[in-house]
Amino acid sequence: MTTTLAAPSLKEALADVAEDIDRRLDGLLAVPGDPRRDLYEAMRHAAIGGGKRLRPLLVYATARLFGVDRDCAGRVGVAIECIHVYSLIHDDLPAMDDDDMRRGKPTVHKAYSEATAILAGDSLHALAFEVLADVDTHPDPFVRAELVLDLARAAGPAGMAGGQMMDLEAEKTTFDLPTITRLQALKTGALIASAVEMGAILGKLSPEGRTPLRGYARDIGLAFQIADDLLDIEGDEAAVGKALRKDGDAGKETFVSLLGLERAREQARLLVDQAIAHLSHYGPEADLLREIARFILERDR
Amino acid sequence: MTTTLAAPSLKEALADVAEDIDRRLDGLLAVPGDPRRDLYEAMRHAAIGGGKRLRPLLVYATARLFGVDRDCAGRVGVAIECIHVYSLIHDDLPAMDDDDMRRGKPTVHKAYSEATAILAGDSLHALAFEVLADVDTHPDPFVRAELVLDLARAAGPAGMAGGQMMDLEAEKTTFDLPTITRLQALKTGALIASAVEMGAILGKLSPEGRTPLRGYARDIGLAFQIADDLLDIEGDEAAVGKALRKDGDAGKETFVSLLGLERAREQARLLVDQAIAHLSHYGPEADLLREIARFILERDR
Repeated sequence: MTTTLAAPSLKEALADVAEDIDRRLDGLLAVPGDPRRDLYEAMRHAAIGGGKRLRPLLVYATARLFGVDRDCAGRVGVAIECIHVYSLIHDDLPAMDDDDMRRGKPTVHKAYSEATAILAGDSLHALAFEVLADVDTHPDPFVRAELVLDLARAAGPAGMAGGQMMDLEAEKTTFDLPTITRLQALKTGALIASAVEMGAILGKLSPEGRTPLRGYARDIGLAFQIADDLLDIEGDEAAVGKALRKDGDAGKETFVSLLGLERAREQARLLVDQAIAHLSHYGPEADLLREIARFILERDR
Repeated sequence: MTTTLAAPSLKEALADVAEDIDRRLDGLLAVPGDPRRDLYEAMRHAAIGGGKRLRPLLVYATARLFGVDRDCAGRVGVAIECIHVYSLIHDDLPAMDDDDMRRGKPTVHKAYSEATAILAGDSLHALAFEVLADVDTHPDPFVRAELVLDLARAAGPAGMAGGQMMDLEAEKTTFDLPTITRLQALKTGALIASAVEMGAILGKLSPEGRTPLRGYARDIGLAFQIADDLLDIEGDEAAVGKALRKDGDAGKETFVSLLGLERAREQARLLVDQAIAHLSHYGPEADLLREIARFILERDR
């Protein structure tokens, strides 16, 4: 079936979005000829040339349902990727997860210094909101303000940062399945949901009209985390590009430790089917979102 | 002279703004009954009940020139204070300035943990933009988007975070006076300028009409930093509530080390006079801004 609405293949879209995000980051993070050089180099080290760019892909795939301008979606994509990368930089710090490798490269505090890593994360954090609030992202200020509000909520203490705090507590206490589900809904789910939500905001979809997309985002967010837990146990460190099997060593409960391997795999499959079912009243224009949901189960890094 | 435009005294305004900011933070940072408790407690520890609230006061004093609703200015004030407090939390970390005391209390990483301090800073950072983008801050989405854009620029790598990076480099290299001036313009000047600019944005002042206020903000920002350097040398640690004389020990150049005590004092006085001169076409409604400029020289903490 070929219509103008037909979605590009996942492989094409992944490659396109990765190239687009790298090009935009390269422009945003031009290294200045002053003593801030290392700060920008550190941001580039962490942000450019790596990662699956899942969140920008979700913005793009959702926005295209509504015929949104490709450039708007690209700018929103780069903003959410800045938030994601900042969270990885801070998460890898010695006081947090203390990781030496990320995306197959030394982490920022290893390649530069801890202080530079803290500031590079903080800089990417602010940059995300600067990009969203800029008139170049969308001509309608209401859309810009809504984008900022959604991403700030998803990043803050009621979203990602709150989930990371729960994750720290998980090393000290034994959490049950509902608490682990809530932890992951905040830690990784909030940002994935924001990617889809911001695509819908760009499409000027009414809040009521967003319900199926929100269901989709919630289900793939949870499936993504279960897949991550499975990868942590079954994955190959070289392919994944970071240290694995740290949760078990730290005595942290995960979906896999609580459900067992087989039931966790089953649960992830179920969530992906459910996510796709939420898209039932969309036609082939939503095929990319469907493919993304399936891809989440198959990822090996 | 008593007109409805007459400014409140500085003393009254300082007390009012301090109370208003504490009340707003208390509402924003209600502690949840879940494993994020420590995150919120840490944010409250750092943010509530301390500091001069100079940046919110500048928002308020500028906004009232244009008859802006008190509540709008208060919400913008709490947003910029969240950014200021987040920067203090991260700045105090062992990998940065490694400070044990702040505002007369243990720093967040001392009272809680380094990981909690990183996340508390990150949370306040996101919260600032959430507050600005919320419809409760201003009914006009254009104003909300402009506020976010201005504060994000001031906080990011071309503002405060960039200045902090230069400050780290200052320990390794000897900076000259123009470089120190640029460092301070970014590190502390950018946020002070943003406070005044956001007041003008709330007042819907045209960008051209903002020139005198920008001159005022630039001059008091620099005067503030010189006063800070003087306080670092002449101040009393108990009154200031943090460790002093660290710049000299670290071999960092400051305005005082480069100009000498007497010329630095003279320069700060000159800047304050110049800041006040920028306000010449405002009447008594700008008296509070004038008083703030003078206050900057007199502060003892």
